[in-house]
Amino acid sequence: MCQLLGMNSRLPASLTLSFTGFSQRGGCTDHHSDGWGIAFFESEGQAPGRAARFFVDKESAATSPIAQMLRTYPIKSHNVVAHVRKATVGAVTLENCHPFMRELWGRYWVFAHNGDLKEFAPHLHGSFKPVGSTDSELAFCWLLQELNKSHAAAPSEEELTKTLAELVPQIAKHGTFNFLLSNGQALWAHASTKLHYVQRQHPFAEVHMKDEDIKVDLSELNCPEDRLIIVVTEPLTTNENWVAMAPGELRVFKDGCPLVRAGVEELALA
Amino acid sequence: MCQLLGMNSRLPASLTLSFTGFSQRGGCTDHHSDGWGIAFFESEGQAPGRAARFFVDKESAATSPIAQMLRTYPIKSHNVVAHVRKATVGAVTLENCHPFMRELWGRYWVFAHNGDLKEFAPHLHGSFKPVGSTDSELAFCWLLQELNKSHAAAPSEEELTKTLAELVPQIAKHGTFNFLLSNGQALWAHASTKLHYVQRQHPFAEVHMKDEDIKVDLSELNCPEDRLIIVVTEPLTTNENWVAMAPGELRVFKDGCPLVRAGVEELALA
Repeated sequence: MCQLLGMNSRLPASLTLSFTGFSQRGGCTDHHSDGWGIAFFESEGQAPGRAARFFVDKESAATSPIAQMLRTYPIKSHNVVAHVRKATVGAVTLENCHPFMRELWGRYWVFAHNGDLKEFAPHLHGSFKPVGSTDSELAFCWLLQELNKSHAAAPSEEELTKTLAELVPQIAKHGTFNFLLSNGQALWAHASTKLHYVQRQHPFAEVHMKDEDIKVDLSELNCPEDRLIIVVTEPLTTNENWVAMAPGELRVFKDGCPLVRAGVEELALA
Repeated sequence: MCQLLGMNSRLPASLTLSFTGFSQRGGCTDHHSDGWGIAFFESEGQAPGRAARFFVDKESAATSPIAQMLRTYPIKSHNVVAHVRKATVGAVTLENCHPFMRELWGRYWVFAHNGDLKEFAPHLHGSFKPVGSTDSELAFCWLLQELNKSHAAAPSEEELTKTLAELVPQIAKHGTFNFLLSNGQALWAHASTKLHYVQRQHPFAEVHMKDEDIKVDLSELNCPEDRLIIVVTEPLTTNENWVAMAPGELRVFKDGCPLVRAGVEELALA
């Protein structure tokens, strides 16, 4: 089992606190020691950025020098996708570390997956090909290929969500398909078995971290205008109202809010 | 003016020493303080890896916390492409930092450019689109598009070099086009105005670093089986036999050796 972590924020925000707890799950409080990765769409001033900083490592997230650097170096971002990995399919090599990144419509897209897909062997036309051997990268390449076929240029988040709601069940029927996807403008989350999110906004409270025995006063780390969503496999704190996503639920988060809720009914039928 | 740094090695090697001197040129011994980037194709055991670690930063390479981490954390690689930037075209944003990375034929490709292109506006069909606003990323996208049109699947390095020797002059005629390109298996270097390389092999000598007042005994850092090529805009040491590449010269390096020399005649005519 891998674990996913995503953030979508209205204002540029650093994920340092949540990443600190999350990265302990890579080989420390949990058994995920087969690599990790994180992609930050770095903010340009107050606006969401187009480019991503992209860090992957075969070393455990709990001990990696790169993860150590990130725990102390706050990178401001509107959208973040992170992953710690327990290898199930594919060897433990760098090319199999999530998130994966590709360019489509002149934007970078990042994707991380938790779960396993069985007998998923879609036809790829060649514009997006996996570099590694995971079912996850294969699913990502197919999704981008089909999005590209469905839209001549980048559509709105609402349009993209509708298309994803049609595409995702075709993959999800092959197994467990919890995923996070971002293009720097929004964050999409799909739950197959397990994914939770929480919205943090003014007034910010004191939270009790689950992976480290500490309490953190979020009002000291945020200003009243901040508003953000954290999406994660297992809740990071013990005293916040984490929402468990339903099986087959697809959500898109923008500006620190759920934008639309799509596909619960359609996906449940798939 | 930007500066380029590349490495091609027979065995997995760390670029720590050369990167330390080179990164001083980002805002310290030189005036390149508009961001930097480096991509390592991380070795898998003794073999060249398929995936790259990819670091870009808008901060000066001399002061960036990520560059600081890399100067002390040796990543073993067969192929490295690095760049420090002085913005000429395009705003100083993360998406304009070199190197750029894309996937083609199930492999990642990285590209960094030194120079300016004028009135270069090729037709892009859509499979590779720039995310930022640099002429460099545009040139990279066009090169990959045309390579993809020329070969149905990944050809040999010799075949790729022949195709590049036909494509590169079509870009180079628009201005200055010094570049480094790698797919993890080989390193291509093209000189338009300024690019130097040196081969290091047994017996390794003591070298005098140009950007820092130190001498380093390479025999202490390498074993007799090591053999590697360093390609750089301006030589990094004062007492090695750096070879200045000729205008229009395209070279491909593999296993720490120049593989073939292509295009000098053809490119000179372009």
